[in-house]
Amino acid sequence: MLSVCLPGTGGFMPLIDRWLTCCWIEYQGHAILIDCGEGTQLALKKAGLHLSRLDMVFITHFHADHVAGLAGMLLSLGNSGRDEQKPLTIAGPPGLNKMIPALLVIAPLPYPVHLIELSPGDMIPGYGDITISCMALKHRVACYGYRVDLKRKPVFSPEKAEALQVPKQFWKKLHNGEAVQLSDGRIILSEDVIERARTPISVSYCTDTLPMPEIADFAKGVDLMIAEGMYGDDCMAEKVAEKKHSLYSQSARLAKEAGAKRLWLTHFSPAMQNPEEYLENVRMIFPNTEVGKDGIKIELEGEG
Amino acid sequence: MLSVCLPGTGGFMPLIDRWLTCCWIEYQGHAILIDCGEGTQLALKKAGLHLSRLDMVFITHFHADHVAGLAGMLLSLGNSGRDEQKPLTIAGPPGLNKMIPALLVIAPLPYPVHLIELSPGDMIPGYGDITISCMALKHRVACYGYRVDLKRKPVFSPEKAEALQVPKQFWKKLHNGEAVQLSDGRIILSEDVIERARTPISVSYCTDTLPMPEIADFAKGVDLMIAEGMYGDDCMAEKVAEKKHSLYSQSARLAKEAGAKRLWLTHFSPAMQNPEEYLENVRMIFPNTEVGKDGIKIELEGEG
Repeated sequence: MLSVCLPGTGGFMPLIDRWLTCCWIEYQGHAILIDCGEGTQLALKKAGLHLSRLDMVFITHFHADHVAGLAGMLLSLGNSGRDEQKPLTIAGPPGLNKMIPALLVIAPLPYPVHLIELSPGDMIPGYGDITISCMALKHRVACYGYRVDLKRKPVFSPEKAEALQVPKQFWKKLHNGEAVQLSDGRIILSEDVIERARTPISVSYCTDTLPMPEIADFAKGVDLMIAEGMYGDDCMAEKVAEKKHSLYSQSARLAKEAGAKRLWLTHFSPAMQNPEEYLENVRMIFPNTEVGKDGIKIELEGEG
Repeated sequence: MLSVCLPGTGGFMPLIDRWLTCCWIEYQGHAILIDCGEGTQLALKKAGLHLSRLDMVFITHFHADHVAGLAGMLLSLGNSGRDEQKPLTIAGPPGLNKMIPALLVIAPLPYPVHLIELSPGDMIPGYGDITISCMALKHRVACYGYRVDLKRKPVFSPEKAEALQVPKQFWKKLHNGEAVQLSDGRIILSEDVIERARTPISVSYCTDTLPMPEIADFAKGVDLMIAEGMYGDDCMAEKVAEKKHSLYSQSARLAKEAGAKRLWLTHFSPAMQNPEEYLENVRMIFPNTEVGKDGIKIELEGEG
């Protein structure tokens, strides 16, 4: 089960009642944070998330509203007792190896930070069976979208195992993908006792960007697509395009094309006081849409 | 009249109910901000201050809790319409010329920023008759205290002017420090018609530092001394000394020695949930002490 939360949903600047856009993905007490704008450490607290569980930070791009909170958050992590035994990984687009040390010059940390400058298409392992992949978006600076996949065990078939007369003591190994040799000499493969594979539990996070068909490919079939909604009103199309951002409707069309199970919109313009106002319109395009609110959470269990 | 506000009073990390320590000093619609930690732009908003009035930022030192909010705040200033016609000055201790560009690499600004790396004892002009001076404090990194003085006109003596038969049309010029020649050829100097000089309106701001006798000299006679109170409990003396900070009582003794008119304590440890708890104790040392609260304000009119 993958827990996903948007501690903040605003773009450009923090507001008194809306923190900056970021995403927290937690699995078995280990967490990934995507983006860390000014105030994100407070947004995490307000959402009831535990900073101490943080393993990896992914940065979409180096604009202040996505990264200016990093130094403060990492210092707080140090003050809460993190030490050299527990390194933190920070990954992001090209420039990361220069930008992160520049930003952290005001934050002497008591634990190691590993930097990973990603290339589009890279996949890196997270905790357990998690994989994180990235794609290049279209923004004013190099900007990446991320997808997190949690591999799930296939469905085991007790019927098949019994038909093959496999003693129960071997079932767990076989379910875990191992082969076993029985006392009568036969070798049983995992696939001999598997009913069917299960798709991973998956989340995609793409902001800030112009709408691109490649996003639908990248987010193909995800359980949760998190995408940009700078404005809900289609009249803002020109301004949004000029700043290289996306409208609700553009992200909803991508969610439909991707066959996503659900869509959460985020990164609202500070000028949009009530992001819910445009929800009904966008549900005409993609019914299972939510307008993100600070602290919105879901437990993804996957399907099938 | 000098308006002074502490939009935030916390040290080390922003809390849900306490912003990071900073100081806003405003005179005739022109403002100086000392320090800018994570969230300071929100703290200013909550305190009802107008970011657009900002002329100068002074940084005490380059620890995240004093400077990590700079990029976000300056971006917001740019988004609110500030342009190349209205530059901003940022001044602070050695290292500033390297640190500020590193921090602002995530914040492309549409207006010029002038950097001034100060040496201890430097005095620089602010808006109108304001002067800002600095001293070196004792912290773990180079750290400056600041003092803001607003020069006031002396007290004019109508009696002296009348005794010298100076026509009223010349009084304003003479009060402003100019000399005038009368129609009978006599030259009247400003000091001929001045009752007495008036001391400037003055504020000092010294955090983070070990207590030093030099602070009392620097803050001599100020209308408002703003000083560090990491802890109120004297039992914390050892920890505070180790981290190179100050206790309430240490700052109160300096205020007494300085002959300050009043003392505001700030930069409270996040561990101190109720900074007011130790107020009565410290008033035994310096009666006119306030424990700063986010948004505390005063209009200083000077004395005499």
